[in-house]
Amino acid sequence: MSTPQIIEADLTWTGESFEHGVQIAIEPDGCIGRVGRELRSAARKLPNRAVLPGMINAHSHAFQRGLRGHGERFSQRAGSFWSWRETMYELVQRMDADTFYRLSRQAFGEMLAAGVTTVGEFHYFHHDASCDGYGFDEIVLRAAADAGVRIVLLNAYYNRGGIDQPLAQGQLRFRCGSVDEYWQQMDRLGDIVDPPTQSLGVAAHSIRAVSIDDIVALDDEASRRDLVFHMHIEEQSKEIDDCVAAHGLRPMALIHDRLSINPRFTAVHCTQTAAADMQALLEAKGNVCICPLTEANLGDGIPDLRRILHSDGCICLGTDSNARICFTEEMRWLEYVQRLATRSRGVCVDESGGCARKLWRIATINGARALGIRAGRIEPGYAADLVALDLHAPTLAGWTEDTLLDAFIFGSGSEAIAATCVAGQWTEHRL
Amino acid sequence: MSTPQIIEADLTWTGESFEHGVQIAIEPDGCIGRVGRELRSAARKLPNRAVLPGMINAHSHAFQRGLRGHGERFSQRAGSFWSWRETMYELVQRMDADTFYRLSRQAFGEMLAAGVTTVGEFHYFHHDASCDGYGFDEIVLRAAADAGVRIVLLNAYYNRGGIDQPLAQGQLRFRCGSVDEYWQQMDRLGDIVDPPTQSLGVAAHSIRAVSIDDIVALDDEASRRDLVFHMHIEEQSKEIDDCVAAHGLRPMALIHDRLSINPRFTAVHCTQTAAADMQALLEAKGNVCICPLTEANLGDGIPDLRRILHSDGCICLGTDSNARICFTEEMRWLEYVQRLATRSRGVCVDESGGCARKLWRIATINGARALGIRAGRIEPGYAADLVALDLHAPTLAGWTEDTLLDAFIFGSGSEAIAATCVAGQWTEHRL
Repeated sequence: MSTPQIIEADLTWTGESFEHGVQIAIEPDGCIGRVGRELRSAARKLPNRAVLPGMINAHSHAFQRGLRGHGERFSQRAGSFWSWRETMYELVQRMDADTFYRLSRQAFGEMLAAGVTTVGEFHYFHHDASCDGYGFDEIVLRAAADAGVRIVLLNAYYNRGGIDQPLAQGQLRFRCGSVDEYWQQMDRLGDIVDPPTQSLGVAAHSIRAVSIDDIVALDDEASRRDLVFHMHIEEQSKEIDDCVAAHGLRPMALIHDRLSINPRFTAVHCTQTAAADMQALLEAKGNVCICPLTEANLGDGIPDLRRILHSDGCICLGTDSNARICFTEEMRWLEYVQRLATRSRGVCVDESGGCARKLWRIATINGARALGIRAGRIEPGYAADLVALDLHAPTLAGWTEDTLLDAFIFGSGSEAIAATCVAGQWTEHRL
Repeated sequence: MSTPQIIEADLTWTGESFEHGVQIAIEPDGCIGRVGRELRSAARKLPNRAVLPGMINAHSHAFQRGLRGHGERFSQRAGSFWSWRETMYELVQRMDADTFYRLSRQAFGEMLAAGVTTVGEFHYFHHDASCDGYGFDEIVLRAAADAGVRIVLLNAYYNRGGIDQPLAQGQLRFRCGSVDEYWQQMDRLGDIVDPPTQSLGVAAHSIRAVSIDDIVALDDEASRRDLVFHMHIEEQSKEIDDCVAAHGLRPMALIHDRLSINPRFTAVHCTQTAAADMQALLEAKGNVCICPLTEANLGDGIPDLRRILHSDGCICLGTDSNARICFTEEMRWLEYVQRLATRSRGVCVDESGGCARKLWRIATINGARALGIRAGRIEPGYAADLVALDLHAPTLAGWTEDTLLDAFIFGSGSEAIAATCVAGQWTEHRL
């Protein structure tokens, strides 16, 4: 039986503050064992490093990394989410398996370098050009394993082009034939995943792409299997108008009407959500996933964060389109967009007024809750998923134990990240 | 007589596009000589590099780098610009000359690593604890020289604590006794600056800190000496209310009433400026400096960029408080904040609809105009101030000549910058 590795960085984040002299035992199974002082005198020292839990990216479409640098020209008319989607569909139509692997691998590698140790991959791109066989599902798992990142494959059901509209062109690559077929494929994926670092979740793409009856059926079975359930909700007003026309209710209201929301449920975006509908989601303890860089790039609008926070809502973060992968940028702009909208400072704060600490919880503990994994904390029994900051990074210069987290979140990017650890396996990013 | 160095990167930005095979002659005086193909067969190749003009940071307070990680806790009440200013004044009061040098040097070094080759340092922190002698003016010039960045010292006049209010505490460190004393110090600084990389500009801190008569006197003499003139204008509503109470006009309207605005004039922030006043500034060809990261951090509000762009206004960018120094982040969020506010994409675009190209002009050519320097273009007679991108940087992966600028601005941070060149002197940032 192998013994745990024991590490001791200059500073360790305990959940409330950085402390000296804390040793972390990483068990052979990839989980954290004991945490404390003087576990063993021969702990491996990590000099000039501060260790924190790795960050958790609760919403990604890795293949969209292929759009980086594309879709930013606007001849004649201003662009929109929908003109961007056309560019994305062009990428989809020319995608082969090799490219799909390469782009996914690239995105996951950049995430790890950005301190993201778990990605919730909202995966709806199932098929190669034959539009059959779900071959891309396995590729995305392999790309995550090769990049060394933990993945929760939020396998997404998609089976229509819009309310009462058939799938068209590129959308055929996303097709799930039926809910039964979806669960058959989930069973196959259950056999493939590598348990130490891979697990499954359920996603219904959106109210556009899935009928409400199918959404209910998916959520019922997800509940029976104790899997998390994610959905894009109310990112764009057109989706809301279409839903009201068909059902007489906005998407979030329709979901409340038909589903029993609970902490397993994550609504992604909610940039256009009505106050009462948001309140109902929060009272049911559903999660809200915000994707600041992507929502800004796509002009989605500004979510009502004050309301969510006032109700003690569980917000998490996602890199979504991966046009830019930098988790400190996601964190600070979650707060900054609110500062601009409210002309005040300190919207996202914890009970003691700490902004960085609140953002850090959002990026770690809350992400883990939305993905249904034991990660995001340096505590016994949690995944040994860590990020090590370089205390000599120029962007951190001037730090004290008391200001380091603030300097990292508000003043730094991925350049301050020296190494990451996923299930006990370290990757050095700069040396 | 020494000969020019001739360089040839894989790709060179010509102002409109990236091209292969372009050689740049850098003359011994630190300026660009000829630019073209086959200047000399023995050009020094820069493999895996794309060369562009260095970026121009038109508004900085370098010493505020000392606040990184501070001022982000909000006990009891929400914070504001004014509560932040209290934190800044605390930093000011404990600042000695060594710390002032160290913080300035740190900020300028980070700027260079972020591809900024010129900083417009809006410098109002003149004195050590004796509150006399202008000793810090020389320090800021020395810090820039030691960091290797070109500086336009926008030497700032500051002589009251608010309209009809005396200087208080920390503000005594900023004090200029009179306009005459200011120009005597400017003459001394004129003898000290190192002409190849240092020049002077004039600044009046704000309508709060300088009387309108002194502003007029400063601008008259700046005009006679052909120096640029910068001013903070309408960042916060309190300043506007105070000005209306004292003068019956808002700050920008008062400036128009008393000064003759022209392209030498740069108004910094304008987050609260009335439409008619902005229109008048633009018709007079004044510049507007926006500081996206700082204005977001301070909750200043969102400038009406569409109006400015519709009138072909000259927008430039500044890192201001230096809480975060990343010029691609400044560029993309200049655009993204507008996308969120207007729920559309492509606000900052050039005549052909290019967003990245427009942002790049803002970060280079427009900044040079606001600072009154011949820089920001790779053309004969311009400063040999360059940035070299690493074409193997992971954040750029997938680039083509056609998408490289977009991938850099929307998808990358300073990690893609391999080297910078200021007046012909190269600094490597990663190897």
